[in-house]
Amino acid sequence: MVVHAENEHISLEKAWDILRNHFLPLYRPESVVVPLKSVNRLMGKRLTQDVVAKRNVPHFNASAVDGFAIRSSSSVYASSATPVILEKMDFQWVNTGLAVDHQSDSVLMVEDSSIDGNTGNLIIFKSLSAGENVRPVGEDVTRGQVIGRAGDIITSSFLSLCIASGIYELEIFSLPETIYIPTGDEIVSPQEWISTDFPESGLVAESNSTLLKGYFHEWGIPLHVHEILPDDPDIIRKAIKMAVTKYDLVLIGAGSAKGKKDHIASIISEEGCLLFHWLLMKPGRPAMGGIVGNTPVIDLPGFPMSTAVVLWSIVYPLLRLITQGDYDNSVLSKAVSSKESYEMTLLSSHSSPPGISEWLRFKAVELNEEKRIIPLTSGSSTLWSLSETDGLCLLPAKTLECPKGTKVSVWVTKDIPWKKRVLYQGSNDPALDRIVTYVRKYSGDIVLRSVGSMGGLAALSRDECHLAAAHLLDPVTGVYNESFIQDFCGNEIWERFLIYKRVQGIIVGSGNPKSINTVSDLARSDVRIINRQPGAGTRVLLDMLLQQSGIPSTSVSGYETQSVSHYDAANRIVAGVADAAIGIKAASDAMGLDFIPITEEPFEIIIPLKYMEHPGIKAFLDALQDNEWKKNVEDLGGYIWSA
Amino acid sequence: MVVHAENEHISLEKAWDILRNHFLPLYRPESVVVPLKSVNRLMGKRLTQDVVAKRNVPHFNASAVDGFAIRSSSSVYASSATPVILEKMDFQWVNTGLAVDHQSDSVLMVEDSSIDGNTGNLIIFKSLSAGENVRPVGEDVTRGQVIGRAGDIITSSFLSLCIASGIYELEIFSLPETIYIPTGDEIVSPQEWISTDFPESGLVAESNSTLLKGYFHEWGIPLHVHEILPDDPDIIRKAIKMAVTKYDLVLIGAGSAKGKKDHIASIISEEGCLLFHWLLMKPGRPAMGGIVGNTPVIDLPGFPMSTAVVLWSIVYPLLRLITQGDYDNSVLSKAVSSKESYEMTLLSSHSSPPGISEWLRFKAVELNEEKRIIPLTSGSSTLWSLSETDGLCLLPAKTLECPKGTKVSVWVTKDIPWKKRVLYQGSNDPALDRIVTYVRKYSGDIVLRSVGSMGGLAALSRDECHLAAAHLLDPVTGVYNESFIQDFCGNEIWERFLIYKRVQGIIVGSGNPKSINTVSDLARSDVRIINRQPGAGTRVLLDMLLQQSGIPSTSVSGYETQSVSHYDAANRIVAGVADAAIGIKAASDAMGLDFIPITEEPFEIIIPLKYMEHPGIKAFLDALQDNEWKKNVEDLGGYIWSA
Repeated sequence: MVVHAENEHISLEKAWDILRNHFLPLYRPESVVVPLKSVNRLMGKRLTQDVVAKRNVPHFNASAVDGFAIRSSSSVYASSATPVILEKMDFQWVNTGLAVDHQSDSVLMVEDSSIDGNTGNLIIFKSLSAGENVRPVGEDVTRGQVIGRAGDIITSSFLSLCIASGIYELEIFSLPETIYIPTGDEIVSPQEWISTDFPESGLVAESNSTLLKGYFHEWGIPLHVHEILPDDPDIIRKAIKMAVTKYDLVLIGAGSAKGKKDHIASIISEEGCLLFHWLLMKPGRPAMGGIVGNTPVIDLPGFPMSTAVVLWSIVYPLLRLITQGDYDNSVLSKAVSSKESYEMTLLSSHSSPPGISEWLRFKAVELNEEKRIIPLTSGSSTLWSLSETDGLCLLPAKTLECPKGTKVSVWVTKDIPWKKRVLYQGSNDPALDRIVTYVRKYSGDIVLRSVGSMGGLAALSRDECHLAAAHLLDPVTGVYNESFIQDFCGNEIWERFLIYKRVQGIIVGSGNPKSINTVSDLARSDVRIINRQPGAGTRVLLDMLLQQSGIPSTSVSGYETQSVSHYDAANRIVAGVADAAIGIKAASDAMGLDFIPITEEPFEIIIPLKYMEHPGIKAFLDALQDNEWKKNVEDLGGYIWSA
Repeated sequence: MVVHAENEHISLEKAWDILRNHFLPLYRPESVVVPLKSVNRLMGKRLTQDVVAKRNVPHFNASAVDGFAIRSSSSVYASSATPVILEKMDFQWVNTGLAVDHQSDSVLMVEDSSIDGNTGNLIIFKSLSAGENVRPVGEDVTRGQVIGRAGDIITSSFLSLCIASGIYELEIFSLPETIYIPTGDEIVSPQEWISTDFPESGLVAESNSTLLKGYFHEWGIPLHVHEILPDDPDIIRKAIKMAVTKYDLVLIGAGSAKGKKDHIASIISEEGCLLFHWLLMKPGRPAMGGIVGNTPVIDLPGFPMSTAVVLWSIVYPLLRLITQGDYDNSVLSKAVSSKESYEMTLLSSHSSPPGISEWLRFKAVELNEEKRIIPLTSGSSTLWSLSETDGLCLLPAKTLECPKGTKVSVWVTKDIPWKKRVLYQGSNDPALDRIVTYVRKYSGDIVLRSVGSMGGLAALSRDECHLAAAHLLDPVTGVYNESFIQDFCGNEIWERFLIYKRVQGIIVGSGNPKSINTVSDLARSDVRIINRQPGAGTRVLLDMLLQQSGIPSTSVSGYETQSVSHYDAANRIVAGVADAAIGIKAASDAMGLDFIPITEEPFEIIIPLKYMEHPGIKAFLDALQDNEWKKNVEDLGGYIWSA
């Protein structure tokens, strides 16, 4: 590999410089002539040259009103007191927009005239000046006038003006042709992926081309997708050599890391020149770019979030470079299709790696008139958080620890109903997870954040959410929630709403292969459990159950493991990573597992009094009464409505 | 006509109330199921229902690194000092993203291990915990997880996530089907319009359907265009009755004013109900809306700017109403495809009619760090200013006189290069009109505003532009510009650049039908002139020529008329409204008219010293030297380069 050491592990700014240095000199914009009737092909495109009107608009003297066309000189001194009479041959009715005859130079409005019933003559009550109520030839556009400039973006009103001005085609800059070549032995096409209910372990759906198609669609640029290629250097080499002769930009999927099957860097080096390798960016690090022939070749890392990041920060700027000659720093906000940018404050602390720019995904919410963001999972492999995010934020490389309240500059990519949206922090619950749609039905919106029952109460006490939910058993009193709420609420009044009871128990494999029947069985040496995070009500329950059975937590294999939700815990059992978990029946049912019920716990919503009139809270309380949602909850199983 | 009096001449807010009252109860959103591979059809659409993941992502325990899959328990106490040895059958190489075998629960990174060259055994230097470097089943998404909510707008990352989650189709809300029916005896199709070089007087190109197609394209909503119908009530009635059975929204072009041919209101009343007629809005007043069957029918006024205004303020909100159930006040910014909204100050005073909301078109520029707008022509018939505008502003009905400096809230619809753009005010000049493209070539931008030579100097003295140009002859000294600049520049230093001399003279009809040869001929009773606006250098020249010939201006027919540019003046002669004008040879040549040369006048650019380093000014000065622009100027004719 012949990439210069100084072009490995570089900043985005350096990568941009490299791209500019290599591809700006190659910038040769192509153009295409498109007939005006192809409105969809023309909209949003850029003119290659000035457009000059071919005819006057209007091309005749047109009446600006409904009335009588006359010579203004014949109306001199006319008034209601001293009307002037005109014979039939000396005036003519004209509708708005129609031609004023050549004898006339003004139009008398109906209200300034009357017609003599006997003679049909026109009685004029007002003196007109030459040109009055007439739109002269060329009033809108004169022949020869420049009506569009090279570089202008074509709008609907410009197209309409072109038609009126006698223009029937426009020369626009052609769009670049891009191809995406997905590679990987483990990758299967969406069709194949969908065709089986249980794909083999190790296979991965080729979902990145869909991500690319979506972004290219938003950018208004065509994208071709190649068939998936195996990790065979000869096959990939052949495809790249072919692609660079036919396309303006070649994108390769995966193969840029240091694994045994990552051949792309060598191929680019051997067939052309590898310009940079690895970015100081998270996610997106294993990106690389090169040139083969005169065509840029960019390798997108295989993980979806990394692919997205390289799309925004390398591919889109490069497309601008090869189609428009350059771009400025606003290119990133356009790449991510941002609607607005804001300064917002972090609602939870965030630690960013040193010397590396980091892309944050987040949910945004307005709390006490302040716009706040909660960072979502930051992994490069997680696609969910990219789908879920309300926007994006690129933390500069110099960012390190960001405590709560740090101001960051973010691009918003979704419409956020700031005044209607509330933030929930608290216990994870599948039934609650289904309520979002119903909150919206009642004109509110809710963001759910699972932080455990204790985390929710703590967040509420710090005024970091609008509502919480808890199912915390006090081991001393044996009463749920009461003592915890008293500890956290301080001087505030918190309203409590018991929604339902949930059946908690031991989730075990289907058919209960390890014959787990009691809490004591969890301490058996052949049993591994999957636990929940500290502060989760379910973990608190496990602790109490172990205590009651006199089992020290250290003797439970897997006690130190953490899953983030009931579904997650159940899933680990399905996957064979664990044999048992404490969790709710709904999760066990959903995964088709066996369940040993232990207790029914009250699940309570807690809302500070001061938020009770918030439109989002009102909508949430309405949603709790919605019969369709209730049906959803019953279908999940393991929920018991409170009387 | 049976529209209630209270629904005539109403505000936009009232019209919205009427539309809500009638069409919200009829809101029955339809849905359609679209396969995931149709990315373009799905992007930006709204989900009708929650989307639940059908499989775990990943669906197996995947390695997060390249390394050796092992059982973590076998690595207990391993360190560089006390390595642990594993035999070949107890470990397995795994690439990032691939499946960790069922025997293993963690992955050892290459750097924490080595392979014994003789035995092939693995030497472990680090103790791993269960799950280390493993992405557990369902890490990204668990089966049963809600990954999209009813009402969510579909994004590319969501589509990609759906594929990974085993989903192959989505139910989205259908888009409404709209038809536009252009009407009018005088309207000809674009094809017909283009097919002749000299259309008959009175004919008008059907350009509004292009305007509509463009906006519908931006909104992502399909539009069907009906053939043009004549002003025949029976034919129009039949078309409307047919359309309401097939479409969700019917738009009629023109026929809403009070002319003799305006039948639409009666037809709607007779076949259904006319809900409102005429808005207190400028332009856009003659809009109306009704209901036939259960289908909304909206009449768009014929003038293009009125059509656009009704599209934004009535049609788009109505589309939102019938597809999404409602809309809020941000609907207008979406309707006009606004990129940003700003408070800006008026650079010239504006007078708005009482009790009527008014739409302003404008050019925007930053002057001394302040964003300013210059309103463009306000007529409903002018399409040019809509094509040219940088954005839109809806002045509320209570707005009356807006002096210079008034703050108004505007939607910006174009990308404005604030820091590179300069504002020119001054003399109208066709050669200068061609320079914009070249200023952009040198990375600047310029807005040209013709206010006459005197107006330009005055604007410069008030710091209301970055540069001006003048050709003002001092009748006392016989010297151009000098004395005027001294009067205006105050204590500022203004740089002067002589670009070229222009040949000024008398423009007369082709073949000089009235034998006009000298300035004295302009006073002949059979000669009508077209003059320029006060303050224009060309008008100053005429005044001096008349004075020299001893002719009082009152004896010149047409002296009081005003045209706004050389082209405009020449055009009036072409149209037969005037016989002669003082103007430059370039305009006369462009229109194929005859020309009697009188003088060569210096055309000077004036730039205050303080703006000489502005990127826009630098680009302008570069553009003045551009050979391609100079070629353009020479082609126009009547320009003489200064030595």
